[in-house]
Amino acid sequence: MRNLIMTVSYDGTNYFGFQAQPGGNTIQDRIEKAIWHLTGENITITSSGRTDAGVHARAQIFNFHTASSIPLERWAFALNSRLPPDIRILEARMADPEFHARRWAKRKTYRYTIDNNRTPDVFQRHLQYHHPTPLDVEAMRHALQTLIGEHDFTSFCSVGSTKLSHVRTIFDAVIERHSNTEFAASPGLIHITVTGSGFLQHMVRIIVGTLLQVGEGKRNAADMEAVLKAKDRSRAGPTAMSHGLMLWEVVY
Amino acid sequence: MRNLIMTVSYDGTNYFGFQAQPGGNTIQDRIEKAIWHLTGENITITSSGRTDAGVHARAQIFNFHTASSIPLERWAFALNSRLPPDIRILEARMADPEFHARRWAKRKTYRYTIDNNRTPDVFQRHLQYHHPTPLDVEAMRHALQTLIGEHDFTSFCSVGSTKLSHVRTIFDAVIERHSNTEFAASPGLIHITVTGSGFLQHMVRIIVGTLLQVGEGKRNAADMEAVLKAKDRSRAGPTAMSHGLMLWEVVY
Repeated sequence: MRNLIMTVSYDGTNYFGFQAQPGGNTIQDRIEKAIWHLTGENITITSSGRTDAGVHARAQIFNFHTASSIPLERWAFALNSRLPPDIRILEARMADPEFHARRWAKRKTYRYTIDNNRTPDVFQRHLQYHHPTPLDVEAMRHALQTLIGEHDFTSFCSVGSTKLSHVRTIFDAVIERHSNTEFAASPGLIHITVTGSGFLQHMVRIIVGTLLQVGEGKRNAADMEAVLKAKDRSRAGPTAMSHGLMLWEVVY
Repeated sequence: MRNLIMTVSYDGTNYFGFQAQPGGNTIQDRIEKAIWHLTGENITITSSGRTDAGVHARAQIFNFHTASSIPLERWAFALNSRLPPDIRILEARMADPEFHARRWAKRKTYRYTIDNNRTPDVFQRHLQYHHPTPLDVEAMRHALQTLIGEHDFTSFCSVGSTKLSHVRTIFDAVIERHSNTEFAASPGLIHITVTGSGFLQHMVRIIVGTLLQVGEGKRNAADMEAVLKAKDRSRAGPTAMSHGLMLWEVVY
């Protein structure tokens, strides 16, 4: 048995998230079905972590054990020809026999994109949350800095979480405004990029939903620390829409 | 009656092109329906020219005469709220009473995008033609230069064309390779940008289909001149797929 590690990119628009579900319309279901078509093996893959319905991945990681003798360099092409066009395997590598895509993950990066132009970019509408009114990015940056470090993120976690501990570490959190010169006028795009040891359910989306309130002036940037310390989901803002979120990178 | 000129951006993926058709699923049909919902007027809009099924527009131009008293600055928002999310009015302006979006157009620019990465970018798959094997961009550039100037473009025109003259002028034609560092590895994207006085049916797509044969080494770059001079559609390459093409700009 070989332990294979694969990098997969997916447009989450048409899926109920990564994790397998009885209905079957998830990224994991599609990949496992493609492996079954290719090798005849009924395999359960292990990802670095689930992504919610509608959330995208630039580079999600998963691993699985296979008895198949298909050469390593053939896997990506062979699986892609059995996958829908919105899921693409980018790379396949051999992993340590003990490698586990979730347990071995050291840090993850997510990126949330806000289209802050008056009229949304039609071509990127599935990938960007459209917010046409002005946002105070400086205030949002100030609020975002508060979250860096090791904290109990209960305030930024879905009340449905089953995790025993809500303590996570955010290593880096950056907000940047980009003018999108090709397709639209200023004020362009806003990217919020957060790197952490791991993320709780809806964590990045609740952070973004709270930052949007700060950017709109409905909440002070300094309020972020009180929200964090409250360890109370009801103190934070709403969960931002899923389609602006992308799992950017997983580092091992 | 005011003569209004509007700039519209559309993702052509789900439409049978720009021009109105009995079936109704075209960009023009959707815009005219939105105007009818807004003003009650049964108006026929005039575009700078049709785009084929699946072709996109960054900035298509159309005009129409209306008796509506809706303030100019309200039109874009009012129409967008009555249009599907893959069609967005970017701007509305007052036009000269004689302005005609097709007849007054001085030059048009189209851009065709080739995703030359081994694995396609899932997020841009509706906007880029995926060609995973190497392309000789230098040879393609050499061939493309041949077309600049005033020529009879019969070889690069659909045999179904009803135009009396196939003489058009290409002012500028550029091919550029861009590394797409965010989502994929080299060799990146190839953009082919062509500006001309006007374009015949399928003209840009036949040019690109012929350039692809040059890039693949199936045809010499120097062959392009003989193809042009033959004034024979069968001498050129195939019509490249529509989804890589975008109407970029119309200048008046």
